[in-house]
Amino acid sequence: MATGVLAAVKKQGNQSVRFVNPPAVLASATVVGPMEGKGPLGRFFDTVLEDTHYGEKCWEKTESKILKESMQYAIKNAGLDESQIDFCMSSDLLNQCTASSMALRECSVPHLGLYSACASFAEAMVVSGMAVDGGFAGKTVVAGSSHHDTAERQFRFPTELGHQRPPTAQWTATAAGAAVVGTPDSEAPCPRITFATVGRVIDMGIKSPFELGAAMAPAAAETLKAHFQDLQRAPDYYDLILTGDLGMVGSDILMKLLTDQEIDLSGRHNDCGLLLYDREAEDVHAGGSGLGCSAAVFSGYILKAMRDGTFRRVLFAATGALHSPTSYKQGESIPSVCHAVAMEWL
Amino acid sequence: MATGVLAAVKKQGNQSVRFVNPPAVLASATVVGPMEGKGPLGRFFDTVLEDTHYGEKCWEKTESKILKESMQYAIKNAGLDESQIDFCMSSDLLNQCTASSMALRECSVPHLGLYSACASFAEAMVVSGMAVDGGFAGKTVVAGSSHHDTAERQFRFPTELGHQRPPTAQWTATAAGAAVVGTPDSEAPCPRITFATVGRVIDMGIKSPFELGAAMAPAAAETLKAHFQDLQRAPDYYDLILTGDLGMVGSDILMKLLTDQEIDLSGRHNDCGLLLYDREAEDVHAGGSGLGCSAAVFSGYILKAMRDGTFRRVLFAATGALHSPTSYKQGESIPSVCHAVAMEWL
Repeated sequence: MATGVLAAVKKQGNQSVRFVNPPAVLASATVVGPMEGKGPLGRFFDTVLEDTHYGEKCWEKTESKILKESMQYAIKNAGLDESQIDFCMSSDLLNQCTASSMALRECSVPHLGLYSACASFAEAMVVSGMAVDGGFAGKTVVAGSSHHDTAERQFRFPTELGHQRPPTAQWTATAAGAAVVGTPDSEAPCPRITFATVGRVIDMGIKSPFELGAAMAPAAAETLKAHFQDLQRAPDYYDLILTGDLGMVGSDILMKLLTDQEIDLSGRHNDCGLLLYDREAEDVHAGGSGLGCSAAVFSGYILKAMRDGTFRRVLFAATGALHSPTSYKQGESIPSVCHAVAMEWL
Repeated sequence: MATGVLAAVKKQGNQSVRFVNPPAVLASATVVGPMEGKGPLGRFFDTVLEDTHYGEKCWEKTESKILKESMQYAIKNAGLDESQIDFCMSSDLLNQCTASSMALRECSVPHLGLYSACASFAEAMVVSGMAVDGGFAGKTVVAGSSHHDTAERQFRFPTELGHQRPPTAQWTATAAGAAVVGTPDSEAPCPRITFATVGRVIDMGIKSPFELGAAMAPAAAETLKAHFQDLQRAPDYYDLILTGDLGMVGSDILMKLLTDQEIDLSGRHNDCGLLLYDREAEDVHAGGSGLGCSAAVFSGYILKAMRDGTFRRVLFAATGALHSPTSYKQGESIPSVCHAVAMEWL
């Protein structure tokens, strides 16, 4: 047997990998709720629901439905059908990732289920990138969703309670995003995944599920620092460094943490949670959050903005808070993770 | 840019992948509860707990602790330290996979969180195999856990209730297993992952969380059939075809489903849920289950039995029931999945 000769030739630094034949994002699709459709990015989303039920009798079924439709539309937008997709990598925020499982049972594509909370869409791109560049798949679909009302009642309080939310709270998006990642059939330039940085689990002791931005900011700082070190790149290599979803509070903390380490993102940083809503008009407190937020902002806005030339190099660093209602009630602090993918127009 | 030339050269058939330089399982470790230690496989497990608390004040913390220790011991058994492990792929059955997150926050290894319920350990081997054979990682650690009391109170009823379990119910194992998967440093033969078959999500309409074997058997049948078709192999290629965790009821259904399709596993099939306990003496009804069951049976018994020559070719096909307590209460049936990895002594 060959031993060692091919070991980790694409590993770069401590946490990053390099894609030798960078997988392309061939197409994408988004389905979002009415609030998200009214926000500043509304015109970038493919389907905007008229209400948060979408004809289903419970929000969990709605979440699964928008996740399924985002996948179906992404595959269709790529000019493909399910039989041409090798694998699906999907996730959501429901316990046991049931939005994904219910969506996938109506789909014939083999499924690798993932979970990194709101960092799962970026994680799916990492795993998909490895599958495609590793030669295991030609085309894959990555997908992620969240629903405001399923997340609130699962992680915090049912929305019917009318519980008052503190200013540090973020608004979980009702949204699903999906993208087809694979080897393109033509030489035409397109958005490609060139590098990925896999996050470590970081826990700085924040315990409140209303302060997820603060809980996740250290994970974002750690992964961004690792990315720049591993790739020997400065932040100014990128047109946009997009975290998701730190919101206003978490973004401020991230800037402080990075400034302390002499990493300057100024003028290039934005956050999916700050882009998705008009914070004042939509009363979302510190900003948007939820797996669907980063999935839809990336699959809707970012990919379209790369295609129209607004951005050529984007570092997409999605963050996830890895707590559960049980861990919270047991007094545990909130572990967090951030996975980053470098997108380049090549 | 290179386009298409490397597309999916390692994809085999509809659902399978071939590892060109098959990743090796370099070492493993298990930590199991007292019942599991008293069972027929007790002598194969590295650490057997004296009680199900293991010094922690709640079972969730216990589960996280045994998962963390199984990873630490596996890395140590491979003669490595954390800094030599590129990535961890881990999962558990707690909501939001918190056993993994709590374990990983005390570990410096970058983490890709997975979720396929009790099929997650096999899924971790698939993803790890792609990372290693794809050249993205030299060494990885894969891990999975479950705890009887955390699973019962989350998925069914708190054990303190003394709820009577029907004969079709399975006993969720208190167990964690971990393995180091990577490129070996020597030419010596060892257990290697040669192929993997990624499962589709299958749902045949079973709704009871006390009938998980019946819910998962069709997924196992579908993945095994795909595996034999994709690889053009007959079941008799393998010394052992090990499902996990169908128990007695699910195993019987699997045999019926495969016989109907003229696939004969007789004499070669066993199930992690049937191996782990003495069903009569330990009163586990239809057998064992839980992510920790397949993780520990594989990491403890199977790998050691491959090293001592009992088995040379093992097809490990782990099954997962992808429901949640919420989906159950909302009247949903139980989607299931089965991921298979072919282990060969090479």
